Amino acid sequence: MSVGIKVFAPASVANLACGYDILGLAFNGPGDEIIARPSDKPGVHISIIRGDQKKLPRDPLKNTAGFAALKLLEHLGTNKGVDLEINKKMPFGSGLGSSAASAAGAVVATNAMLGKPLTREELLPFAVLGEQIADGAYHADNVAPALFGGIVLIRDNESLDIVKLPCPKGLYISVVHPKLEILTSEARSILSEQLSLKSHIKQSGNLAAFISALYTSDFNLIKRSLKDVIIEPQRASMIPGFYDVKQAALDQGALACSISGAGPSIFAFAQNSFFAENIAKEMQEVFRKNHINSESFVSSINTQGVKIY
Amino acid sequence: MSVGIKVFAPASVANLACGYDILGLAFNGPGDEIIARPSDKPGVHISIIRGDQKKLPRDPLKNTAGFAALKLLEHLGTNKGVDLEINKKMPFGSGLGSSAASAAGAVVATNAMLGKPLTREELLPFAVLGEQIADGAYHADNVAPALFGGIVLIRDNESLDIVKLPCPKGLYISVVHPKLEILTSEARSILSEQLSLKSHIKQSGNLAAFISALYTSDFNLIKRSLKDVIIEPQRASMIPGFYDVKQAALDQGALACSISGAGPSIFAFAQNSFFAENIAKEMQEVFRKNHINSESFVSSINTQGVKIY
Repeated sequence: MSVGIKVFAPASVANLACGYDILGLAFNGPGDEIIARPSDKPGVHISIIRGDQKKLPRDPLKNTAGFAALKLLEHLGTNKGVDLEINKKMPFGSGLGSSAASAAGAVVATNAMLGKPLTREELLPFAVLGEQIADGAYHADNVAPALFGGIVLIRDNESLDIVKLPCPKGLYISVVHPKLEILTSEARSILSEQLSLKSHIKQSGNLAAFISALYTSDFNLIKRSLKDVIIEPQRASMIPGFYDVKQAALDQGALACSISGAGPSIFAFAQNSFFAENIAKEMQEVFRKNHINSESFVSSINTQGVKIY
Repeated sequence: MSVGIKVFAPASVANLACGYDILGLAFNGPGDEIIARPSDKPGVHISIIRGDQKKLPRDPLKNTAGFAALKLLEHLGTNKGVDLEINKKMPFGSGLGSSAASAAGAVVATNAMLGKPLTREELLPFAVLGEQIADGAYHADNVAPALFGGIVLIRDNESLDIVKLPCPKGLYISVVHPKLEILTSEARSILSEQLSLKSHIKQSGNLAAFISALYTSDFNLIKRSLKDVIIEPQRASMIPGFYDVKQAALDQGALACSISGAGPSIFAFAQNSFFAENIAKEMQEVFRKNHINSESFVSSINTQGVKIY
């Protein structure tokens, strides 16, 4: 096999409590390793997928990485072909942006293999199209942070109007993934299509304050504002022991704690790595008491996004 | 009459399109002049109100300025008395924070007369209590900007958790007040108590982007984000010709245009004073064609709040 381009695409946390469907961040540790190699045949081919327990489709039209790469090739109008090797180094169905990592990694690797005809910003729509294969929704709150790194605001999912937000120095994230499966489609279907104006006002105040706090590195304001009065109360029951896990995180000094994406993973913010380690440990302890196995990740914000080796 | 403390409290624009009940700013021009003089009798006395066409109550318990000053005196536990002279130099029932200016001015003047026992931040709750007399609601989206100046976020109206936001250099505001009367209570009662999750997501994306744009002085992002898909569509019909006025502002290069507070005044953002003047002129022209008299104000953001002479 010819030498290819190897990339690593990080996991991500979407929603961030008060930013349903519009905020996400990338973190270090889990993710997808993807290698793109030139293929003799035009189009996209998936030769190897590892770490998926044979659960992911090998057909490029049904695979997020494959479809994202295919849409990129189509856009470029090239008849060159790409062979993808996908090494999943993260859980999926976990609410940690597994399909987003695949899609983001695939477009960066394929674009690099072709001599970087597009900027990273220009790659976003193809990665979003790829993730849509898995998720059904055209939205970028996992794909954009996986691709660019950092904390990202998606002002508008339709036009993919993206704003990169600052990451306060010292901000750490504890992520705990309980071994439960939640389907994103199910997590979406339980949400009410309506909410009260009162909840909207409360969430808006918190969202605006959180954005401000990122610019001013105001950890106290993050603590006061990173709350979700709309989505979390509807999804909490999907995760056994959620409120106990959250309380354990807050008791350990977490600035905030909520559901990562559609769940079942739970994230907490901390103001340093020491706190973050303890928070993750106590969150896992609560799951253990509920007879639920879990794994945890402790990380600063990943500000790089997809990394090309 | 003894020499007193004279202050000027500026008018304000609340809501700012995507920040219903949580955002407001102060601007230069209209406002309330209030003079606080020591009184021989304990409590609050209102000796003079000018410019109100005799519409405002003289009873301190029913007057926003009087009640705000009274609550401040009560809090301080003083048996000193204050006499208030109120010179209204702004329209009321206009959506420009007339009652908020009275309340903010009254507490600053009274506090200064007493030797400034409280900081300006500590005065906020008493001013909000004062405005509540006129408005019925306990909220600070006019009072906080009138008191502090600038663009202010009220993260939470109950606890009065306030965040002062940056004002991009060069940002101007055009405010047009059509001579129509809208009762705030009526403007509130026509609002639906529910909204769709889809609208919430759209508004949230815009709100978060607007906050970001204030920190980065990104006028293009202000233009893309300062929109209201929730409140404006419900209140527009209260202002004859609203959409034509708005279109005229946008045609003249306005970054954004929406209803000021509960209306009927309309504000537009511009990136310099020249644009702002033209925008105000054209907005008034549309009202004129609809046989509605109006007055206009063109201003940079007032960053001072209540000014003590």
